[in-house]
Amino acid sequence: MSYKAPVEQIEFILRHVVPYGEIAATERFSEAGFDTVSAILTEAGKLAGNVLAPLNRNGDETPARLENGKLRSSPGFDEGFRAIAEGGWVGLAADPEHGGMGLPQALNMAVAEMMAGACLSLQLNPLLTQGQIEALEHHASDDLKALYLPKLISGEWSGTMNLTEPGAGSDVGALTTKAERNGDGSYSITGQKIFITWGDSDVTGNVCHAVLARLPDGAKGTRGISLFMVPKLIPDENGNPGVANSLKVVSLEEKTGIHGSPTCVMSYEGATGWLIGEEHKGMAAMFTMMNCARLGVGMQGIGVGEAALQQAVTYAQERIQMGPIIRHPDVRRMLATARAEIFAARAIALACATAIDLERATGDADHAARAAFLTPIAKAYGTDTGWRVADTAVQVHGGMGYIEETGAAQYLRDVRITQIYEGTNGIQAMDLVGRKLSDGGEAAARLLDEILDGAKSAQGDHPELANEVWQAAETLREATQTMLERDLPERFAGAVPYLSAFARVLGGYYHLLAVRAGGEAQLALARVFIRRVLPRFGTDLEEALAGLEDLTAIRDETLAGEMAG
Amino acid sequence: MSYKAPVEQIEFILRHVVPYGEIAATERFSEAGFDTVSAILTEAGKLAGNVLAPLNRNGDETPARLENGKLRSSPGFDEGFRAIAEGGWVGLAADPEHGGMGLPQALNMAVAEMMAGACLSLQLNPLLTQGQIEALEHHASDDLKALYLPKLISGEWSGTMNLTEPGAGSDVGALTTKAERNGDGSYSITGQKIFITWGDSDVTGNVCHAVLARLPDGAKGTRGISLFMVPKLIPDENGNPGVANSLKVVSLEEKTGIHGSPTCVMSYEGATGWLIGEEHKGMAAMFTMMNCARLGVGMQGIGVGEAALQQAVTYAQERIQMGPIIRHPDVRRMLATARAEIFAARAIALACATAIDLERATGDADHAARAAFLTPIAKAYGTDTGWRVADTAVQVHGGMGYIEETGAAQYLRDVRITQIYEGTNGIQAMDLVGRKLSDGGEAAARLLDEILDGAKSAQGDHPELANEVWQAAETLREATQTMLERDLPERFAGAVPYLSAFARVLGGYYHLLAVRAGGEAQLALARVFIRRVLPRFGTDLEEALAGLEDLTAIRDETLAGEMAG
Repeated sequence: MSYKAPVEQIEFILRHVVPYGEIAATERFSEAGFDTVSAILTEAGKLAGNVLAPLNRNGDETPARLENGKLRSSPGFDEGFRAIAEGGWVGLAADPEHGGMGLPQALNMAVAEMMAGACLSLQLNPLLTQGQIEALEHHASDDLKALYLPKLISGEWSGTMNLTEPGAGSDVGALTTKAERNGDGSYSITGQKIFITWGDSDVTGNVCHAVLARLPDGAKGTRGISLFMVPKLIPDENGNPGVANSLKVVSLEEKTGIHGSPTCVMSYEGATGWLIGEEHKGMAAMFTMMNCARLGVGMQGIGVGEAALQQAVTYAQERIQMGPIIRHPDVRRMLATARAEIFAARAIALACATAIDLERATGDADHAARAAFLTPIAKAYGTDTGWRVADTAVQVHGGMGYIEETGAAQYLRDVRITQIYEGTNGIQAMDLVGRKLSDGGEAAARLLDEILDGAKSAQGDHPELANEVWQAAETLREATQTMLERDLPERFAGAVPYLSAFARVLGGYYHLLAVRAGGEAQLALARVFIRRVLPRFGTDLEEALAGLEDLTAIRDETLAGEMAG
Repeated sequence: MSYKAPVEQIEFILRHVVPYGEIAATERFSEAGFDTVSAILTEAGKLAGNVLAPLNRNGDETPARLENGKLRSSPGFDEGFRAIAEGGWVGLAADPEHGGMGLPQALNMAVAEMMAGACLSLQLNPLLTQGQIEALEHHASDDLKALYLPKLISGEWSGTMNLTEPGAGSDVGALTTKAERNGDGSYSITGQKIFITWGDSDVTGNVCHAVLARLPDGAKGTRGISLFMVPKLIPDENGNPGVANSLKVVSLEEKTGIHGSPTCVMSYEGATGWLIGEEHKGMAAMFTMMNCARLGVGMQGIGVGEAALQQAVTYAQERIQMGPIIRHPDVRRMLATARAEIFAARAIALACATAIDLERATGDADHAARAAFLTPIAKAYGTDTGWRVADTAVQVHGGMGYIEETGAAQYLRDVRITQIYEGTNGIQAMDLVGRKLSDGGEAAARLLDEILDGAKSAQGDHPELANEVWQAAETLREATQTMLERDLPERFAGAVPYLSAFARVLGGYYHLLAVRAGGEAQLALARVFIRRVLPRFGTDLEEALAGLEDLTAIRDETLAGEMAG
C-alpha cells in the first residue's frame, strides 16, 4: 500500500507532451526551467510518499469529528499539514509579493496531484486555500490582501469556499444568505451554508471563509451576489487572530468517503465580513476560485486513480491464482487500459495548466480560451478516469477489494466525490457545450487544428496510430460543427458524451506526442489507448448528437418504472 | 426512500418477452399459470416493500457483529427472515416432496430480485440456502435429503457455501482444506475458509455448511475435491440441533457494503461432515449451487439497481434547481438510460431462468444449453447494470448522493460486491467465451438465429428499431465466428467486451419484443436503449477481437507507471 509519486511521468509530460518549455521561456516564469521542475517534483514526491501517504488510512478510520463544537482532525493530519505549509507548498504558485513562490500552475497542479494521490482528505485543505489565495490576488483590495495573503500563503491560516445552501447547489443564484452594510466598511452576514470542506480546522490558526451572500439591493439570481471574507477569528490590529466571529459549525456530514476531510454545515449569525471585489460582482471572484479548484479536482481524480492503480499492479504481481494474475489476459487488459487512461488524463490536465500559465505570462487571449476550454474536460475526464481506475483496482483485488483493510475500496469511496463537487461532471459538460462553444467554436477549432496537424506530422513514423487520431479528430471537428447548430437543450442532452469524445481524441493526441519523444514503453501504452480507449469516441459522438426527442418522449412515470402509457 | 417492487414490469416480461407461457404449459409446472404468477409476485412485492425494505438502513448502520463468538445480526433481521421463511419463500422452487412449492425458477428469481432490491444483506441468507437446497436435491443421498431439506426449505435452518480459502479464490482447485474418513460413514474436516456469507446466523436454528475439501487420496486440482455437509449443530437422532460441531467463526470482515450480511472467516477443526454426492466429485455439486447462485446474483444487481433508480427518480422530481431537475436534459438522459438498461438486464435474467425451467420440465438439451449460455451474461450484465445504475443514482443526487443518510451511496456500496462474488465478472466472461462456446458456438448460434428472426418479423411495424437490432445481431454472429477461431488466451483478452456486446444485442432484442406487446411507454424505452445503449456493441466487438498482442507488449513496469523501457 505504499504510494510512489509519479515524478518521472509528470516530468516527461512537461518536457515532451505539453508546451511547458514555452512557459519557462517567458519572463514571468524564467526561473521555472526544467532544473526547477525536477527539483520541485522530486521534493513534492518525497513529501507525498513519505509524509502524507501514511496518513491516508488514519483519515478513513478516524474521521474528523466535532468535540464540544470544536473540530478534531484525524490523527497525524496536523503534522501532515505543517509539513505541507513549511515546505512552502501552499504558496507554490502564489504571488511572491505576499510570500508565494510565483511558480507556474503546471507545477502547482502536478504537486496537487501527488498530494491528493497520497492523502485526498488532507490535500483538500491546501487546495481550497489556494483557490482563496487566487481570488484574493485577483479581486481583493490591497488592505485585504496585505492582511490575509501572507498568512494563507504560509499555511498559518486556511481558506474555505462557501457557495452551497440547501436550496442552492448547481443553481447558485438561488442562494438566500444575506449581507448587510454595517456602515464602517464591514458587512454583517447571516445564513446557512452546507458542504463546506474544512469549514473548521485545528491544523491552522484561523479559518478564512469566502462566503457568497446577497445585499438587500442585490438583484435576484447570480447578478446580485457578493463575495465576503468572513474569518473565524477576527484579526486584531496586529493582524493576529482576535475575537471569535458570529459563526459556527453546526454539524459534520457523514460521507461515503474522504472521512478525514470535515464537511461542515456552517451557520453565520450576523458574522462580520469584508467585501472581496465589488458589490454584486461576487460571482466573478468565485469563478476565479472555482476555475482553479476545478482543475485541481481533476488532478485529485488522477492522483487517486494513480494510487489505486499502483496498488492494483502490486497486488496483481503478488496474487497467485494459476500464476500471477497480472499474466491473466483479462487482468492485464484492465490494468493496461487504466494506465493508458491515467496518462491521457494527466496530459490533458497539465495541458490545461500550461495554458493558464501561458495566458498569465503573455496575456494572450488564445491561451485564455484554451485554458477555459480544457478546464471542464480536465475536471470531468480526470475524475471519471479516477473513478474508473479505482473501480478497476477494486475488481483486480477480487474479494479482497471489498474488504476495507486492503485500502482499495477507500480509493473508490474517496474519489467518488470528485465527480460531484466543484460542479458535477454533468455541469462541466454543459459548460463545455454551452459557454465554451459560445465563441462559435473557435477555441475548439484551434485545438482540433493542432491535433490534426500533430497527427499528420506523426504519420511518417507511426502511420497506423497517427491515422486513427487524425480520423477521430476530423470526425470530432464535423460533430462540433453540428453541435454548434443545435439549441442549448439539445446540446445539453449530448454534453456528457461529447465531452467524453473530446477527451478520447485529446488523449490519443497526447499519447502520439509521447510516442514521438519516448521509447518502447510509450509506444506500447499508446497502442492500448488508441486501439481500446480512443475508438469509443464514435459512439460517444453518435449519442452526443442523438438529440432530445427520445428523452422528452419518455414520461416520468416510465422512468419510475410504471408500464402504462 | 420507499421501495416499490416492480411487480408490473416483471409480469409484463414473463407474459410478453420471455417464453414463460411454455413453462406453464408443461406438466411439471401446470399449476404455475399466469394467475399464480400474479398472486405470487403481488405477495412477494408486499413482503419486499413493506417488511424488508424498512430493514435496509438498519443493516448498514448496525452491522452484524460477533459478541463472545456469537453472531448478532442487525436490528429487525430476525423478524425479516421469519417473514421470508413463514411465507414459504425459501422453498418457492424446491421439491414439494420435502416441503417446497415446486414453482418455476423464473418466479423464484423474480422474487429474489424483489427481496434483494429491498434488503440485499438479508436476502443473501435465503439465496445461499436455496443454492444448498438445489445441491442437495441433485446430489445428496436420500438420508441426507430427508434430514436437511425440510428444515432448509422451511427456513428453520440456513445453508452456506464454503469454497474460498486465502490461497484459493478463482482458482478453487488450489484449496487445502482436508477431509478424512472417520470409518462410520462420516468425515472429519479441517481447514480455514474465508468470505463465508452468513457463516453464522442468529435468525435460524442451525447453520448448514456445504464445505469443499480434499480427501487424502484426492487428486490435485479440482478433480480431487469433495463436498461435505458440515452442520454447526450436529442433528440428534430426532433430527433436532444437537451438540456443537468443531467449527467456529474466527472473525467477521469489515466490508465496503452489505454490512448487514456477516462475512465470516471460518475455522474447521476436525469438524464432522457428511458427503454430498460422490467422493472427489464435489465440484459438480458445487457447480449446481453456483449456477443457481450466479443467476441469483445477477438478480441482486438488477434489484439494487431498481431500488436506486426509483430513489433517484423521486429525488429528481422533487429537487428544484431552475425547475425540477428531472426536466434537465442531462439528468433525463441518465435516468432514461438507466431505466432502459434495467429493463434489458431483467429480461435477460428472466430469459435465463425460463430456460432453466424448460430444461427441467422437458429435459431438452437445447434449453440446457440456452440456460448455460445465458447464465454468465445474466450475472455479469445484471450486476454491471446494477452498479452503473446505482452510480447514476448517486450522481443524480449531486452532493446529497455522497451523504450517507440519503441511502443512495448504500446502494452503490452494497451492489459493488455482486460484480465480484460467485465468480468475478471477468470469470463470467471467460466462462462465456471458453466453456460456453466449447460447443462450437451452437448455443450462441441458436440464440442469434432467434434474435435475427425476431428482428426480421418486427421490421413491418418498427423498421428502424428492428433493423438496428438485426444488423447488430448479424455483426455479433460474424464476430462470434471469429472468436471461435481464436485460442483461449486471445478469447480471454476480449471476453469482457464480448459479453458486453452480447448483452447489448440481447437487450435490444427483448426491448423489441416488449414494443410488439406494449404501449407507448415500451416504445419510448426501446428507442432509448436501441439508440443509446445498443450502438456501443460495435466498439465492444472491436475490442473483443483486438487480441492479446498489445497487452503482452506492455511490460509490468510500464503498468506500474515507470517510463523506461
